[in-house]
Amino acid sequence: MENHKRYETGADVMDQLFSQETQTYMQHIKEISPDFWDMIVSFGFGDLYGRTNLTLHQREYITLTALITQGAFDQLRVHIIASLKIGMTQQEIIEIIIQCVGYIGFPKAVHAMGIAGEIFKSLDAESTKA
Amino acid sequence: MENHKRYETGADVMDQLFSQETQTYMQHIKEISPDFWDMIVSFGFGDLYGRTNLTLHQREYITLTALITQGAFDQLRVHIIASLKIGMTQQEIIEIIIQCVGYIGFPKAVHAMGIAGEIFKSLDAESTKA
Amino acid sequence: MENHKRYETGADVMDQLFSQETQTYMQHIKEISPDFWDMIVSFGFGDLYGRTNLTLHQREYITLTALITQGAFDQLRVHIIASLKIGMTQQEIIEIIIQCVGYIGFPKAVHAMGIAGEIFKSLDAESTKA
Amino acid sequence: MENHKRYETGADVMDQLFSQETQTYMQHIKEISPDFWDMIVSFGFGDLYGRTNLTLHQREYITLTALITQGAFDQLRVHIIASLKIGMTQQEIIEIIIQCVGYIGFPKAVHAMGIAGEIFKSLDAESTKA
Amino acid sequence: MENHKRYETGADVMDQLFSQETQTYMQHIKEISPDFWDMIVSFGFGDLYGRTNLTLHQREYITLTALITQGAFDQLRVHIIASLKIGMTQQEIIEIIIQCVGYIGFPKAVHAMGIAGEIFKSLDAESTKA
Amino acid sequence: MENHKRYETGADVMDQLFSQETQTYMQHIKEISPDFWDMIVSFGFGDLYGRTNLTLHQREYITLTALITQGAFDQLRVHIIASLKIGMTQQEIIEIIIQCVGYIGFPKAVHAMGIAGEIFKSLDAESTKA
Repeated sequence: MENHKRYETGADVMDQLFSQETQTYMQHIKEISPDFWDMIVSFGFGDLYGRTNLTLHQREYITLTALITQGAFDQLRVHIIASLKIGMTQQEIIEIIIQCVGYIGFPKAVHAMGIAGEIFKSLDAESTKA
Repeated sequence: MENHKRYETGADVMDQLFSQETQTYMQHIKEISPDFWDMIVSFGFGDLYGRTNLTLHQREYITLTALITQGAFDQLRVHIIASLKIGMTQQEIIEIIIQCVGYIGFPKAVHAMGIAGEIFKSLDAESTKA
Repeated sequence: MENHKRYETGADVMDQLFSQETQTYMQHIKEISPDFWDMIVSFGFGDLYGRTNLTLHQREYITLTALITQGAFDQLRVHIIASLKIGMTQQEIIEIIIQCVGYIGFPKAVHAMGIAGEIFKSLDAESTKA
Repeated sequence: MENHKRYETGADVMDQLFSQETQTYMQHIKEISPDFWDMIVSFGFGDLYGRTNLTLHQREYITLTALITQGAFDQLRVHIIASLKIGMTQQEIIEIIIQCVGYIGFPKAVHAMGIAGEIFKSLDAESTKA
Repeated sequence: MENHKRYETGADVMDQLFSQETQTYMQHIKEISPDFWDMIVSFGFGDLYGRTNLTLHQREYITLTALITQGAFDQLRVHIIASLKIGMTQQEIIEIIIQCVGYIGFPKAVHAMGIAGEIFKSLDAESTKA
Repeated sequence: MENHKRYETGADVMDQLFSQETQTYMQHIKEISPDFWDMIVSFGFGDLYGRTNLTLHQREYITLTALITQGAFDQLRVHIIASLKIGMTQQEIIEIIIQCVGYIGFPKAVHAMGIAGEIFKSLDAESTKA
């Protein structure tokens, strides 16, 4: 695979996962370091998410768990929204957090559940308005 | 659910995940603290794994990722073998580790891959002998 | 022990540790996932805190240390307040943080000390007013 | 406090916590870096453990928890033995590990319990022989 | 070295690293626990930073990396500003974060890069005004 | 940069850092997953270490610190040997570990110092024989 293909694959995955609004926000990283941005897109989303052996849905199981386990709650917020966008249900996300509790304890799981709850509430409010 | 049901559910899940040999080994914990052992079975495997919204296969995606992310490599070994026992493929386990690398970096992923490789080699050797 | 007893034991421990106001706040978790809430009460506070071999006071030594060590500062805030409620002194909490510094380094200890300081100041202000 | 007093205080604490054999082993650090060794004794055991507001027994509650929470199992072994030496019971150590499980999950708690079990067995064997 | 010399050495290092404003802020710790403050100055900045074998510049490579790796982002903010004060370039700080990504993954590196970007922007705005 | 160039750059960096023997050992990863191996070489050593703004020597300051901070002691061993190979002195490595202690506490620093000491002793023995 040539190098510009890696970037294109990554950009395509990002379009599936993130709203235009989220992607615009992410680009503040590009202004600080274009090289780092290129790594995020080409390596993170191109080389990793762009692989074919797992679905995006399966990959988000892994991503959500890795983020909860290390307490990376800012990115968790972004990936809970992404997971819902690609068709994960609210119940599935709750189950992932519950399964985690045996491996990481309650503090991080409670924090994650609080974030999930906020997102669910705000999305439900939006869809009720519509 | 009454309390002895929680234990039975957990014991049943453990039968699906772990060989008799592994379960016998685990019981050294029971000798040190029967109460702690009861928590592992009733809460860990009964209350958590015993829930119905995800398959065991999906739960092991979460477990493997949580173990790799925190570097709990002894338990990872046990759960890679368990994951293969319930039908996960070697390729799926490799993909889980590869997906993790973007979220946790190479050191833990390389360590996990080394453990997976050892297990695969030893199981392949056994099945060739058979 | 039957299952509803586990919940009752946990609820009783929570009454000892947390003000009514804190408990009301915690219940946002119950709305997101009643099952997860049940685990917090029955397992976390019932099965663990409800055991008789250590006092609540001794258990909070362990809880505070586990929270500081993993940087779970939201829960730390809740448990510093709980520790004071069950009779731990401000000096004891400061000593726990100081003892931690050799095992976890300054960044998390400084963060914990800042949180403790805020809580002490706000409680001292209240008691002066009263 | 003058500086040589800090070292003496630390050395005195170490005599209370560690057998002569353990202290001799620890000194391999002194050969690699005498300055680092001095920090361990003067700061770690002198400035921290040497403080008067908590007992050594209470300090070991904190130390054991901090070590279990970060998965520092080599040092955990040393401090479980130290804790028994200053009068902590086997049951207390088991309770500390059990209390931790709610805050850190099972993998590290199981690992810690296995180490505790080995130590208890080896000490019980010794005392039976005697 | 006598004990008051340790404090003086630490205070001198802090003058090199931190603006008067930052140092004044840090002193809220001194009000909570003068003993803990003394440890920060005498041990943290005196015994450690005050050693002669590495430059402050080299020590900040280590500090920044240790803070990014453990996700101690409040202290990272303070030490990015300190690093710029002692002559590290913005490009060097970006390179440290990029080098980290292979060892810790993207979530913490992205968070660190965001903080660095904010600091750079605010300093550039100030220097433009001047 | 085309893609095969990324791999070549990475392979060239690895030749500078690691002995032929170490590189041969590392290749067990290639047998388990050639794709993962390609990421290690092309991304880890090509895209990251292959950048020009820092020297390899400076990059190893970051690598050693990131490995010590997360307790990745297997990889630490490999990178201490690599750091000596590219001209870092034993004293520098000791200083890096000592600087870390303020940020991560003693347990991981003591573990790292023990590993460094073993490597120094074994290399000194070799060079005495020669």
